[in-house]
Amino acid sequence: MASSSEIGLAATINILTAFAFLVAFAILRIQPFNDRVYFPKWYLRGLRNNPLQSGAFVQKFVNLDFRSYLKFLNWMPAALRMPEPELIDHAGLDSVIYLRIYLTGLKIFVPIACLAFTVMVPVNFTNKTLEESKLTYSDIDKLSISNIPTGSNRFFTHLVMAYAFTFWTCYILKREYEKVATMRLHFISSEHRRPDQFTVLVRNVPPDPDESVNELVEHFFLVNHPDNYLSHQVVYNANVLSDLVNEKKTKQNWLDYYQLKYNRSNQSKRPSVKTGYLGLWGKKVDAIEYYESEVEKLSKKICKEREKVTKSSKHVMPAAFVSFKTRWGAAVCAQTEQSRNPTIWLTEWAPEPRDVYWDNLAIPFVSLTIRRLVIAVAFFFLTFFFMIPIAFVQSLANIDGIVKAAPFLQGVLEVEFVKSFIQGVLPGIALKIFLIFLPSILMMMSKFEGFTSISALERRSATRYYIFQFINVFLGSIITGTAFQQLNTFIHQSANTIPITIGASIPMKATFFITYIMVDGWAGVAGEILRLKPLIFYHLKNFFLVKTEKDREEAMNPGSLPFNTGEPQIQLYFLLGLVYAVVTPILLPFIVVFFALAYVVYRHQIINVYNQQYESAGAFWPDVHGRIITALIVSQLLLMGLLSTKEAAQSTPLLIVLPILTIWFHRFCKGRFEPAFVRYPLQEAMMKDTLERAREPGLNVKGYLQDAYVHPVFSNWDGSDDGVSDDDDWPKEPALVPTKRESRVNTPVRSQRSESSRTLLCVLDERSCP
Amino acid sequence: MASSSEIGLAATINILTAFAFLVAFAILRIQPFNDRVYFPKWYLRGLRNNPLQSGAFVQKFVNLDFRSYLKFLNWMPAALRMPEPELIDHAGLDSVIYLRIYLTGLKIFVPIACLAFTVMVPVNFTNKTLEESKLTYSDIDKLSISNIPTGSNRFFTHLVMAYAFTFWTCYILKREYEKVATMRLHFISSEHRRPDQFTVLVRNVPPDPDESVNELVEHFFLVNHPDNYLSHQVVYNANVLSDLVNEKKTKQNWLDYYQLKYNRSNQSKRPSVKTGYLGLWGKKVDAIEYYESEVEKLSKKICKEREKVTKSSKHVMPAAFVSFKTRWGAAVCAQTEQSRNPTIWLTEWAPEPRDVYWDNLAIPFVSLTIRRLVIAVAFFFLTFFFMIPIAFVQSLANIDGIVKAAPFLQGVLEVEFVKSFIQGVLPGIALKIFLIFLPSILMMMSKFEGFTSISALERRSATRYYIFQFINVFLGSIITGTAFQQLNTFIHQSANTIPITIGASIPMKATFFITYIMVDGWAGVAGEILRLKPLIFYHLKNFFLVKTEKDREEAMNPGSLPFNTGEPQIQLYFLLGLVYAVVTPILLPFIVVFFALAYVVYRHQIINVYNQQYESAGAFWPDVHGRIITALIVSQLLLMGLLSTKEAAQSTPLLIVLPILTIWFHRFCKGRFEPAFVRYPLQEAMMKDTLERAREPGLNVKGYLQDAYVHPVFSNWDGSDDGVSDDDDWPKEPALVPTKRESRVNTPVRSQRSESSRTLLCVLDERSCP
Repeated sequence: MASSSEIGLAATINILTAFAFLVAFAILRIQPFNDRVYFPKWYLRGLRNNPLQSGAFVQKFVNLDFRSYLKFLNWMPAALRMPEPELIDHAGLDSVIYLRIYLTGLKIFVPIACLAFTVMVPVNFTNKTLEESKLTYSDIDKLSISNIPTGSNRFFTHLVMAYAFTFWTCYILKREYEKVATMRLHFISSEHRRPDQFTVLVRNVPPDPDESVNELVEHFFLVNHPDNYLSHQVVYNANVLSDLVNEKKTKQNWLDYYQLKYNRSNQSKRPSVKTGYLGLWGKKVDAIEYYESEVEKLSKKICKEREKVTKSSKHVMPAAFVSFKTRWGAAVCAQTEQSRNPTIWLTEWAPEPRDVYWDNLAIPFVSLTIRRLVIAVAFFFLTFFFMIPIAFVQSLANIDGIVKAAPFLQGVLEVEFVKSFIQGVLPGIALKIFLIFLPSILMMMSKFEGFTSISALERRSATRYYIFQFINVFLGSIITGTAFQQLNTFIHQSANTIPITIGASIPMKATFFITYIMVDGWAGVAGEILRLKPLIFYHLKNFFLVKTEKDREEAMNPGSLPFNTGEPQIQLYFLLGLVYAVVTPILLPFIVVFFALAYVVYRHQIINVYNQQYESAGAFWPDVHGRIITALIVSQLLLMGLLSTKEAAQSTPLLIVLPILTIWFHRFCKGRFEPAFVRYPLQEAMMKDTLERAREPGLNVKGYLQDAYVHPVFSNWDGSDDGVSDDDDWPKEPALVPTKRESRVNTPVRSQRSESSRTLLCVLDERSCP
Repeated sequence: MASSSEIGLAATINILTAFAFLVAFAILRIQPFNDRVYFPKWYLRGLRNNPLQSGAFVQKFVNLDFRSYLKFLNWMPAALRMPEPELIDHAGLDSVIYLRIYLTGLKIFVPIACLAFTVMVPVNFTNKTLEESKLTYSDIDKLSISNIPTGSNRFFTHLVMAYAFTFWTCYILKREYEKVATMRLHFISSEHRRPDQFTVLVRNVPPDPDESVNELVEHFFLVNHPDNYLSHQVVYNANVLSDLVNEKKTKQNWLDYYQLKYNRSNQSKRPSVKTGYLGLWGKKVDAIEYYESEVEKLSKKICKEREKVTKSSKHVMPAAFVSFKTRWGAAVCAQTEQSRNPTIWLTEWAPEPRDVYWDNLAIPFVSLTIRRLVIAVAFFFLTFFFMIPIAFVQSLANIDGIVKAAPFLQGVLEVEFVKSFIQGVLPGIALKIFLIFLPSILMMMSKFEGFTSISALERRSATRYYIFQFINVFLGSIITGTAFQQLNTFIHQSANTIPITIGASIPMKATFFITYIMVDGWAGVAGEILRLKPLIFYHLKNFFLVKTEKDREEAMNPGSLPFNTGEPQIQLYFLLGLVYAVVTPILLPFIVVFFALAYVVYRHQIINVYNQQYESAGAFWPDVHGRIITALIVSQLLLMGLLSTKEAAQSTPLLIVLPILTIWFHRFCKGRFEPAFVRYPLQEAMMKDTLERAREPGLNVKGYLQDAYVHPVFSNWDGSDDGVSDDDDWPKEPALVPTKRESRVNTPVRSQRSESSRTLLCVLDERSCP
């Protein structure tokens, strides 16, 4: 156990580090040549085109206005100044609700910290248990529950505090859930018209021998939603096409670059290029001609592929985006069961067009359940056995292994310094690499599992990451040993000794977690605002790769809120705060500082940097709420375990009420608020429909929705199609639905509308092909 | 452990008992004076009015046709002869699907028993472990897994068998689920028009200062389902009225009786009655006059109460049955979220009118969640601590206690025989009484929890009864000791020793469970067909109480399928069968006999006796399926525990795959089939609507639905209202919805329709009041 002076030293180091980061940030951000790294959001919104200063040439790159250096912390009030409604408008609701997680942390822990310091610190401190014992102890331990003698009546203070903290946390959680749900509903209702409000994603369209997917979808919805069905868009498997389009884009970019270069050099010397790998070898040819021919070749290829994709039924996936005339119609379709067989014609809200994860749209139901099983098993092994392959790699990556593989290094490796460095660092590196790649691995797992929207992928990854952190960081730090060893211990322990084992070692780990909070939390957050990696990458790219203005835009890479890694990290702090609130209250101020700092930093980043990929209107809040509840229950169980080792056994029946009440509270909240995040109330839909009908009586919904859910590879092709209105030939009364089924029709009548939509695709085709 | 000869003796006794019951039944059922006890279903369906025989006076009571005695078992083939579709028509789908549970048992256990006897019995029998050991053992044990030496490779046979049994069970379960789902959907789609297809139950109508519930409901659905809303029926709190109506019914019955008596006695002597308690004392008055005045008094009271209920808004509960023009409209409303606030305007499918549990319709959301918590805690205590009050009663009900309370019995109690009888029997009686009342207690708990339909109440009670039986009968028999002691043991044991503790004692309890199956299963089922209690009660009532023909009808009391007690009992046999299939296969034939006997008996009872109160179209099947899956997982875990004591540790990783696969299978089935039991597909609804529109173009749905969901106390009042058609004045285009809200309207316009529906109620009022 570290003494308070050691903690003080660690705190000083970390505060200095964080402060250094902040100062570096303050200096770097006001340099004009960094402007695109620290304010990309404004560039992307089109509100900023150049660094604000203008003047001498040098001033374009370096800020020479020394007054601005003095006000180096003024970004903080600036970040807090933007009011919430404006922030929603500026960065979307997701970002604002993400910030609310930090706010929730502050709301929970500031009063808890105050109460703990006024009540529990005196109660703990005025004992002499540790002084009288022969154990080594620190000042921090004197403030913790360890200082209370075994069997003392003072434990009732902790009991009462546990109740108070639980009720306070639940109160705040309920208020926040209420507030977030209201914000979400208000956002959805006050929002502009969005294609996903009218659209439903239909999956598992059953195969039909007589009709194509296109016709089948149309007929099904004309029959079953006759008053509401408007149009639909089948989903194409366009992965090959997508690759081709990307390739063409690169080549086009090179072409632009060489043309620019040629023009800049006053058309004196035509640039040349080598055709081999990476332009390093091969025949030297005229660059502009070469890339022109390449682009043309690819254009033709793409045209062929496009034709193949749109014409051949093989590329049509059994899924479609079905649009309705009203929001009411879409809300009805998304929430109801369509077919007798509940595994076909699955409907759900369409995600926002930019939120769709196109590759997963075609996975059939049985495959989905199998994938879920496979991933569940895989995740179990990943969590509990991830140390095995890493240990294996570590055993390989020792000096002997390297010498064997590369004998010529023997001389170098025999130098004592190199040897000890490798032996010291290599094992750590394997683990570090794994941990860096872990979020990507988890994201791949989620993708394999078959979610259809990026937001859902991120939510699921966040859940998994939280579980991994809970087991391997939280439990792993308390009970040293790998997760598998823990599992083994727990299986062989009785159900009531598990919380005792963990609970008993909790007070001893307080100093460790305080250090962890400072390193991972404080310094980490301060590092976040510095954006060191994007900064370096931007300048490297700018120097070596950026050829055109478009490239520079791409080099900015603002990124988006790292929900799948950031949220689990916050949750770890909630867990630590709640667990230690009763046990070692001295930990709380560190948590509070983390939440406050992170709130300011992320608010600044959201305003100036991040550019959200999608907008889910805070769909992740039920997860956030659920995990805080989990943390609360864990803290209660561990307190029970801890108190039972302290021979305060009479407290157990009183404490067991807490988790029961908490679980009940969770179920109450689930019933009360969760539907607002899962379903779309008809009242709301009807209200918006009515308003819209009154405001814009002649609105052409069909034209509006026409291209909304076209695969990006089609819609990005030439971004100039504004939705041709062909709503006039739309029959108002679909009295009879034409079908091609052989059983009914002798003279096959082709579906008129499918014909027309197919023609439309061909028109789209022709328009974009040369 | 009982030897095989002891088992043989028990079997003989039980077979003889069962046989005696069957013979008694065969004799009693062909006696004409028992006809109404054994064939009430036919009377209720109006297909039978009198015993079939006719002839001499004696033959009206006793069957003298001796040939019929010889064919005394011919009810069995008769019971099996009725084909399934006819049976559905005769007794409803619920009964047929209930019978399928027994069929499923046969389908699962007959092949398992065959396989077990051909493979496992030889493998077990050809060892000499028990012979060589010094333990006492029986022939049955020689056939069980106990006879395999520790660490033997033969355990792999059991492992393979466990796999085979699991796959077979899952295969049958999937097929049955599929079949039942198809039956349900087919039943729902081929059924006649039913009011619940068009109706949705709306609960938690929010209070509104400006509008009554009646108006509010109308406005809400006119606005949010403008094309589909048809009408609605608010729910009245009519419990007082209901009591009055019942009282009047009794009095009316007495009046009929005396009038009949007076007429029979050739109007010679007017019957008289005493007005005091039970007619035992008090003033003697003329019976007919007395009851006439009483009936009249009650009629007036009822009229007043009716008026009070229908006029005063205090009696209107915040719930309503809302009917739609089409099934599609109702399906949409039932499956969607109506309001922003997910705790108000809760919609769900309306239960069948006769399935509605009226008292629970007004419970608000918050109260519901609190009630659920309270009942969860209460049930926990009931399950684990029910022995405490019983032990307390037992300690009071001893000789000393009785002597103290009633000293005058001292003489009697000192007789040795009486003393030992009381001491032997009294403690048992307290437990027995508790067990008899347990289903009623569980039903009361479900009622308190707030379910709105009788079917849901029974399903929930069945779940609780199953859990109680699992813990107190199954686990309680294996690990002797009260449930609380078990709980205590389990909490203090490690997670992996629990299955070991239970698993190890399983083979030793085989003979106990065989006896249990014979007593509770065989003899119990044979007792069921005898209907001893209804038989005695019918004759007692017939002799003492039956005054009119209506009374005789009520005395028949056919009852309905005891789902809430019967299904958990079957599940116990599934559990026993699956657990012992691998361990002691000799138990399987007993299970198979139970399922076969029960199938025949209950098929007979369903055809001839039971009269279902409601029709849920097999809504209970997901529960049945889920509990068999639970039994399967329990059996797998216990086998793991058992094998680990046998030092066949290498089997554990192979066995752990089984529960994972089973859980996955369960989730697969849940996704694949459960929606068919919870939701109503729009395709189905649309199909029925279209068909109906084509067949009956001028159908007056409104007239049809008008009185469907009137509280029984209103509709039973004078069962002669055939639904007055007032559909003509129904405005076709509700362009504007009138409202009374003060914020909008200056000159308050009263809702026309509410007015009309209120008028309708008054008309109903007037019609029935004198």
